[in-house]
Amino acid sequence: MLCDIGNTSYHFLKGESTTKENVASFNPSTINEDVYYISVNPKVDSLVESLDNWHDLREFIVWQKYYETMGVDRIVACEAISNGLIIDAGSAITVDLVVDGSFEGGFIYPGLEAMQETYRNISPRLDYSLNFELDLDKMPQNSRDAISYGVLRTLYSEVMRHNQQIYLTGGNAQVLSQIFPQAIVDEHLLFKGMKKMMEKRC
Amino acid sequence: MLCDIGNTSYHFLKGESTTKENVASFNPSTINEDVYYISVNPKVDSLVESLDNWHDLREFIVWQKYYETMGVDRIVACEAISNGLIIDAGSAITVDLVVDGSFEGGFIYPGLEAMQETYRNISPRLDYSLNFELDLDKMPQNSRDAISYGVLRTLYSEVMRHNQQIYLTGGNAQVLSQIFPQAIVDEHLLFKGMKKMMEKRC
Repeated sequence: MLCDIGNTSYHFLKGESTTKENVASFNPSTINEDVYYISVNPKVDSLVESLDNWHDLREFIVWQKYYETMGVDRIVACEAISNGLIIDAGSAITVDLVVDGSFEGGFIYPGLEAMQETYRNISPRLDYSLNFELDLDKMPQNSRDAISYGVLRTLYSEVMRHNQQIYLTGGNAQVLSQIFPQAIVDEHLLFKGMKKMMEKRC
Repeated sequence: MLCDIGNTSYHFLKGESTTKENVASFNPSTINEDVYYISVNPKVDSLVESLDNWHDLREFIVWQKYYETMGVDRIVACEAISNGLIIDAGSAITVDLVVDGSFEGGFIYPGLEAMQETYRNISPRLDYSLNFELDLDKMPQNSRDAISYGVLRTLYSEVMRHNQQIYLTGGNAQVLSQIFPQAIVDEHLLFKGMKKMMEKRC
């Protein structure tokens, strides 16, 4: 059993099927079988480190290829591919570049829900749902598009500049694929990276 | 006397000198002379509309050139120039395109402080101050730059794509000029637009 622990949920893979559990409510000690996991969540780290059947895949990472404070979810996604730009769209959106199996750097953008909340907090006048059918080639002439463009077009302009095959994963991979129709959507990308790391080690 | 009222402060121009007052604490009825103002702050709107010496410059706007829900601050900035891209960096960052005196659209990005707060709220592991000396031509290899790049490089990539003279205004104009060294920094841009609108009307 594999598990990817993010800021908001546990994402399990068992055989071919995946399940999600909320970080705030799920108790990891209710699982009896062996779980190989990655976690970017310090609160969950302290819960699972005392459980004998939860095995941190951190130990499998060749750290020379990455940097010290880099999220393990990003590292594991990079391990899954040989060439391309990975967009992992969850509570944060991480964008990482891999060239010939080597990590070439990456950046962190806020997640889509976080961005909407940010606008709402700046002013009630900026409280809009994002328009994913936005025309990316036209500067907006209405408020909803002005905000959608601010969130999506800025990210798009930077991503497209690299001229790489794009891989989309994470909870918002499907919605973001409307903006990046040329991307490969792979919701199991992190699990693929985890498996590859385990195979290499064996 | 001119006044630009934003989400966080009153910004006054009297002769050549400017002053700022906090929206939460300043009482507009303490001013006795005539004030010509713009406001994007609904709370302040309700305070000043009952005061006889506070005159809303909203009436001076030729609305056919803009869109209904567009912030008056953005409109006034557009009135100040004939050609270029205006970046008004305050609690939000608005980016507006003017070609031959005509508004060609624009977008809204969160302000720099709002973005930092957004990262902090996603995870304590993403709580970094922005690095304005970031190398924009290199994908980051550390956490602080990964976040700084996420905020600044995305915006930069979209802005530079338009290949226009950039005008920087607003409270964060100076810090952003580190990222946009080719920009004209003009902290009085909105006041210039307000004056132009008043002259046209007279």
